[in-house]
Amino acid sequence: MMILGVDPGLTRCGVGVIEAGVSRRLSFIHVDVLRSNPKTSQDLRLLEIYNGLVEKIERFSPDVVSIERVFAQENRNTVLGTAQVAGIAMLVAAQRGIPVALHTPTEVKLAVAGSGSAGKEQVERMVARLLNLNVLPTPADAADALAQAICHALRPAGALQGGEREQHLTDAQRKWAESLRAARGSSSVGRGM
Amino acid sequence: MMILGVDPGLTRCGVGVIEAGVSRRLSFIHVDVLRSNPKTSQDLRLLEIYNGLVEKIERFSPDVVSIERVFAQENRNTVLGTAQVAGIAMLVAAQRGIPVALHTPTEVKLAVAGSGSAGKEQVERMVARLLNLNVLPTPADAADALAQAICHALRPAGALQGGEREQHLTDAQRKWAESLRAARGSSSVGRGM
Repeated sequence: MMILGVDPGLTRCGVGVIEAGVSRRLSFIHVDVLRSNPKTSQDLRLLEIYNGLVEKIERFSPDVVSIERVFAQENRNTVLGTAQVAGIAMLVAAQRGIPVALHTPTEVKLAVAGSGSAGKEQVERMVARLLNLNVLPTPADAADALAQAICHALRPAGALQGGEREQHLTDAQRKWAESLRAARGSSSVGRGM
Repeated sequence: MMILGVDPGLTRCGVGVIEAGVSRRLSFIHVDVLRSNPKTSQDLRLLEIYNGLVEKIERFSPDVVSIERVFAQENRNTVLGTAQVAGIAMLVAAQRGIPVALHTPTEVKLAVAGSGSAGKEQVERMVARLLNLNVLPTPADAADALAQAICHALRPAGALQGGEREQHLTDAQRKWAESLRAARGSSSVGRGM
């Protein structure tokens, strides 16, 4: 299964592509950071990112596009631009009939590093290890996009598809499944694959 | 000049089209509310609104698309969906090389009703009067989209293009120009036509 992960952002939008094979074996395929010119207007910046995402998604034909779930609580100046880029990534996938999955930063950290409070460096090291990379993926947006894709590949099947039994999960996956259960009932946006 | 106004929203997205002639004479052309199915996933809802906006913009070939400026401060549940729809409206315009203008709700109320704190009903009545409509445009999203377009048509030229002298402005336009001057320096997103 080809998974394209997106770490949305207007200035830098990370895109990471991995292949998830049998027994959750992961292979690195591609990573890149799309940029838009901060000196141009918002509409042209969104178009720049849209065109970049179209190119990536058409080139790699992923089976699923996994995008960071953005929260309104983050009252940063950039949150609206981030939400808009996430929306545009959803649009590009929907236009091609490709399913969309949304995973929170905490889910991603739990899936990749086994702890929802893992630091950036720890996540980067685990991304490199899981994908057999000799160097850490940089910048952070690149690593985060790969982590987003890995998170979707390693998501506990039971938590989201109601299949696999949890004793087959790794420790990190079990913790993650528990955190998902705890979060049940809280509001969520997206298809929730 | 053909102006297409957008009141962004994921559940209901207002679209209003007016023609602004000589001496700021305004004519009503079209109004509609695009809807997306709240029972489908976010990506499919965004695609539904995108397709609706593409149809409107291709049908009316506006000279400018005027969209409500969304603020992160509005910590409502819906603000991210609203921002995403605003972003998608910007994208649809940018894909066709159509300039985008963003106006805040306060600017719109000032331009249409002469007061930044005008109520919904007052704005609806003024929209109907300015466009010579016999009935009030409903629902509110429809009226707001027309008001957004009217705001762009009636914007004080001096405030945004550095041309016309302010003594030619109506009382409402003068108040609006003053409020824009007061707001100068505050952060703003978009091309600011």
